[in-house]
Amino acid sequence: MTARYRLTIEYDGRPFVGWQRQENGPSVQAALEEAIAKFCGETVTVFAAGRTDAGVHALGQVVHIDLARETTPDEIQGALNYHLKPAPVAVLDVAAAVPEFHARFDATARHYRYRIVNRRAPLTIEAGLAWRVPAPLDLAAMQAGADLLIGRHDFTTFRSVQCQSKSPVKTLDQFTFTRDGEVIEARLKARSFLHHQVRSMIGTLKLVGEGSWQVEDVKRALEARDRSALGLNAPPDGLYLVKVDYDG
Amino acid sequence: MTARYRLTIEYDGRPFVGWQRQENGPSVQAALEEAIAKFCGETVTVFAAGRTDAGVHALGQVVHIDLARETTPDEIQGALNYHLKPAPVAVLDVAAAVPEFHARFDATARHYRYRIVNRRAPLTIEAGLAWRVPAPLDLAAMQAGADLLIGRHDFTTFRSVQCQSKSPVKTLDQFTFTRDGEVIEARLKARSFLHHQVRSMIGTLKLVGEGSWQVEDVKRALEARDRSALGLNAPPDGLYLVKVDYDG
Repeated sequence: MTARYRLTIEYDGRPFVGWQRQENGPSVQAALEEAIAKFCGETVTVFAAGRTDAGVHALGQVVHIDLARETTPDEIQGALNYHLKPAPVAVLDVAAAVPEFHARFDATARHYRYRIVNRRAPLTIEAGLAWRVPAPLDLAAMQAGADLLIGRHDFTTFRSVQCQSKSPVKTLDQFTFTRDGEVIEARLKARSFLHHQVRSMIGTLKLVGEGSWQVEDVKRALEARDRSALGLNAPPDGLYLVKVDYDG
Repeated sequence: MTARYRLTIEYDGRPFVGWQRQENGPSVQAALEEAIAKFCGETVTVFAAGRTDAGVHALGQVVHIDLARETTPDEIQGALNYHLKPAPVAVLDVAAAVPEFHARFDATARHYRYRIVNRRAPLTIEAGLAWRVPAPLDLAAMQAGADLLIGRHDFTTFRSVQCQSKSPVKTLDQFTFTRDGEVIEARLKARSFLHHQVRSMIGTLKLVGEGSWQVEDVKRALEARDRSALGLNAPPDGLYLVKVDYDG
């Protein structure tokens, strides 16, 4: 008999090849699975709500695991945080889940944030944690472009060639830019995103913000349904998986 | 003939032994002086408003330098940021200054911020950039303790044994705590601070916040004028020199 647990995870994406276990370097998934093996000797597969890319960060990734050992959420959190060291991965919360709970398939929404530092000087404290854009960005123009992407669309233009989603049609519920001094943040929400969708949209709107694209060019790119119509893919540095929603 | 310039500097304190040039490791001062030598071949001394300790960060350190080369603020900023790489030090701003301007002696106020992450889980993205405190902190009690320290006092208790200041008497103008979720930030302002003063005050108020000290114990520690009456010295991780004020 095993019991299912739901874990909320934070990580710094910089040293990882991404969420998913791969041959070519350290992954967040492998770090967690190895910590679980050290804790209770069980070889488990960790299922995540969002398979973040190399260099992408998470403030509230959600995963589920099955454990045979009799334990408690508190013990799991303490033990995994102990065994995860020195990897920059932390278990923020553990809760018992129903046996049917699935971190990926039950998710009703994903929330992402993208952080831009709009200044001439290179980043120091935030190197790898934000995208530095030297040219002054016109936030109103970027928001006008983002507004064109909200809703249900065929996002083929904003989808990586490796994307495994069955359909390129997604519904974008929120895409809001705010500025605080030199820091610009975008908040996005959707049931699910295509591979590279957030970075492709952000990169394209950066071109609008600096004036090399017009707002109408975003509409034209979207309607082209063609990856080659994409403006620019933003780097992973500024991307954070912030929160995952579930029913109930 | 040389011309004087005032530079605003940002740095990540993690890899440095501190602001000041030392034999035992890389300093921010040495990084800047070496970048200046690469830019124009001149061997200069960089004077800073605040000599931050190992591991302490700066968002707005102010320094002055004298250069013989005919140049412009824009050229200085671009060249130093180029030559500073890969050190996590950036020149945010350069301005021509009057020949009498002195970054340290002309400063009328220093602003510091101290960042605490009040949670059980270890830090990932903010490792080295904040102080993690697992026990729930009572912000009202910490603010009551901070209020006792505002004003003109003999801060001997909150002063490191290496402090070179002539007098232990300082005037603390501001000491305000705010909380946003798990993040607690303190904002402090004074004309000048003693060595380790901010960290000593924060460490002591952390004891108040977790309930192992009472607010009155802060008063007793201050009035003892004795380093051995200190509660705790907070780590450098959470400390940021945010801004330096000058007249005019």
